[in-house]
Amino acid sequence: MQHNPIITLTTDFGYRDPFVGIMKGVILNINPSVTIVDITHDISPQNILEAALAIEMSFESFPHKTIHVVVVDPGVGSPRRPILVITDRYYFIGPDNGVFSQIYKLKHETLMLMHITSEHYFMPRRSSTFHGRDIFAPVAAWLSRGIDASKFGVPITDYVFISVPVPIITGKHSLKGEVISIDRFGNAITNIKAQQTDELQKSTPLKKLKVLIKGKEAPLKNHYSEAEDTELYSLINSFGYLELFIYKGSASKSFDIQVGEKVRIAVT
Amino acid sequence: MQHNPIITLTTDFGYRDPFVGIMKGVILNINPSVTIVDITHDISPQNILEAALAIEMSFESFPHKTIHVVVVDPGVGSPRRPILVITDRYYFIGPDNGVFSQIYKLKHETLMLMHITSEHYFMPRRSSTFHGRDIFAPVAAWLSRGIDASKFGVPITDYVFISVPVPIITGKHSLKGEVISIDRFGNAITNIKAQQTDELQKSTPLKKLKVLIKGKEAPLKNHYSEAEDTELYSLINSFGYLELFIYKGSASKSFDIQVGEKVRIAVT
Amino acid sequence: MQHNPIITLTTDFGYRDPFVGIMKGVILNINPSVTIVDITHDISPQNILEAALAIEMSFESFPHKTIHVVVVDPGVGSPRRPILVITDRYYFIGPDNGVFSQIYKLKHETLMLMHITSEHYFMPRRSSTFHGRDIFAPVAAWLSRGIDASKFGVPITDYVFISVPVPIITGKHSLKGEVISIDRFGNAITNIKAQQTDELQKSTPLKKLKVLIKGKEAPLKNHYSEAEDTELYSLINSFGYLELFIYKGSASKSFDIQVGEKVRIAVT
Repeated sequence: MQHNPIITLTTDFGYRDPFVGIMKGVILNINPSVTIVDITHDISPQNILEAALAIEMSFESFPHKTIHVVVVDPGVGSPRRPILVITDRYYFIGPDNGVFSQIYKLKHETLMLMHITSEHYFMPRRSSTFHGRDIFAPVAAWLSRGIDASKFGVPITDYVFISVPVPIITGKHSLKGEVISIDRFGNAITNIKAQQTDELQKSTPLKKLKVLIKGKEAPLKNHYSEAEDTELYSLINSFGYLELFIYKGSASKSFDIQVGEKVRIAVT
Repeated sequence: MQHNPIITLTTDFGYRDPFVGIMKGVILNINPSVTIVDITHDISPQNILEAALAIEMSFESFPHKTIHVVVVDPGVGSPRRPILVITDRYYFIGPDNGVFSQIYKLKHETLMLMHITSEHYFMPRRSSTFHGRDIFAPVAAWLSRGIDASKFGVPITDYVFISVPVPIITGKHSLKGEVISIDRFGNAITNIKAQQTDELQKSTPLKKLKVLIKGKEAPLKNHYSEAEDTELYSLINSFGYLELFIYKGSASKSFDIQVGEKVRIAVT
Repeated sequence: MQHNPIITLTTDFGYRDPFVGIMKGVILNINPSVTIVDITHDISPQNILEAALAIEMSFESFPHKTIHVVVVDPGVGSPRRPILVITDRYYFIGPDNGVFSQIYKLKHETLMLMHITSEHYFMPRRSSTFHGRDIFAPVAAWLSRGIDASKFGVPITDYVFISVPVPIITGKHSLKGEVISIDRFGNAITNIKAQQTDELQKSTPLKKLKVLIKGKEAPLKNHYSEAEDTELYSLINSFGYLELFIYKGSASKSFDIQVGEKVRIAVT
């Protein structure tokens, strides 16, 4: 396979228990020369949507052929299927519960999905509660050693898809989105893309784009330190999404903004 | 030594201070080609028992010859000894305070213990408060470079042992164990092994095995999602221990279950 | 460049968001054979002083030529400059906001600073909010591949310096310092160095050195377990600084000691 195989890990296992370390041991046992990178292990327990967004934000930063393992798996042990997702550039391994939904949406990549069924690549004694250790880690490690993807199972097309809320066009010059994530700094990331605010602006180039949340305006800035007081502002963040922030503070805490909060954009 | 030496780290140093990063710097200074894996650094401060359980859960997932370093060390600087534990398959390095007690119990491995005394493998200026940096990290790194284990000190047999609570047989068809750990998801792990519940069941095959905690029954399931409501259930977890859980929730929080809580098993 | 290049990361990005994983992906894309080590990602948001102390404590544990990347960057997107700091033994990359101030103080190293201006080493589409991904990670990766430091920009001498509080001589036999950091265990680290307590002691060898905080004495010990009760004690810690502690407990919590608390030393 590739010269320097990379496996990334995204889980809701946290940092207190040894679960992540155990997965790494299993991987290194099978492929001692792989590089393992943690994306995050602090996904809220069982929050598939949060994991779907984290892997969407991250996967393209890695070299082609990187194997992205995501284990947020409330259905572990049930008949929900373990899957291998193959795009032109990357591999994804995890449960078939929608955790890769944002990958399925990518228009520019050919997509192939396999139901992982080849049990000889699993750990010999498989538990019903820790497939991160018993299925996902060993399959990722064998794949990183160059085993052909087709060996791991059978192609499927009826995969589970969860929908991330998308903005709604509410008028010729307005739309309504919502906060889909709060980051460590208390910034509130919305589902509104730069492309959408750009199009709204172009629709009425001479008027001003307004971002409204909780009945107040959050003026658009280019970067955080342009806003020097403690009011609420917005910007297009580094992933191309509209984000609410206050400078050197937590927008979420100061303005009580949670995931699900509605955000309106209008050109007036 | 081995082709791809691995050193694992388990500490109570947390993730906020630079202590773990510093240990890694020391190791890489001595052996730049070692792979370092974090098991956890969020052991409760000075909690030797918690560390003993974490390393017991983890060590066998790693390739043979892996060097497991555990630094939970309330006696740092005192005459408590630094030790190197050698089994047929693994190395363990840490303070002689019982942190490897669960390893000492393994019946299937020859065990040799060394008091680490060879100061030329320590950092030149040794502090009395950070032996992770000054003794354990450099000794692990030198060992990973192939220095023979016998060079690090002198064999001992009078090592410190701490006892993890074990279940008590309370009748012909019953036993009493206790919760020894709560994981990130709020699952309550007991000290009762699958083998013990199996034997109880076999003693009266036609009767039903009951798990009782806090005066209520926690019915046995095979995996988490078999339990679809918010009641308390139990299962044999992926490490072979009886565990109390609620589906998509925290058993610990919802039923106020803490470490030390008694659990009774009866066949009736 | 060096045979086994190492890049360390110190940020305030936390462990919940995928930001750190993304930086690692960018680095591995440019240099797949680099070893990446986390120092900490739990610097308090935007706390430049905390980051300056963390990198001061850590940098010398690593092999020479290690590249230390620090991203605590409230001014991201503003005209504050990205810089590369070159000493005789190490490289440092981060924003010019004083985060390397403790490095600038080192007397024994030649210091050279570059304003990083060579945009062809940046990510092609540069955001105004995530220079960790778009500037600092790729520049560190290219540097680790052996690109000469002089290629990254232009030398500067007008760098930003923040001053860490230093102890004040308050009399012939006394001085006043303060707590500058609380560690994970609740130990309170002061800005008073061993050298300073030594000199005070030498000034009156027959008298006793007293450490006073919040109106009470914290007797000097050699290591933690010398103090066996729950009173407040002090010692010279593994980094050569005076530290307040209680044995197996949190001095910060038990005695309400915060950063900024004054500490007096007197020989009487």
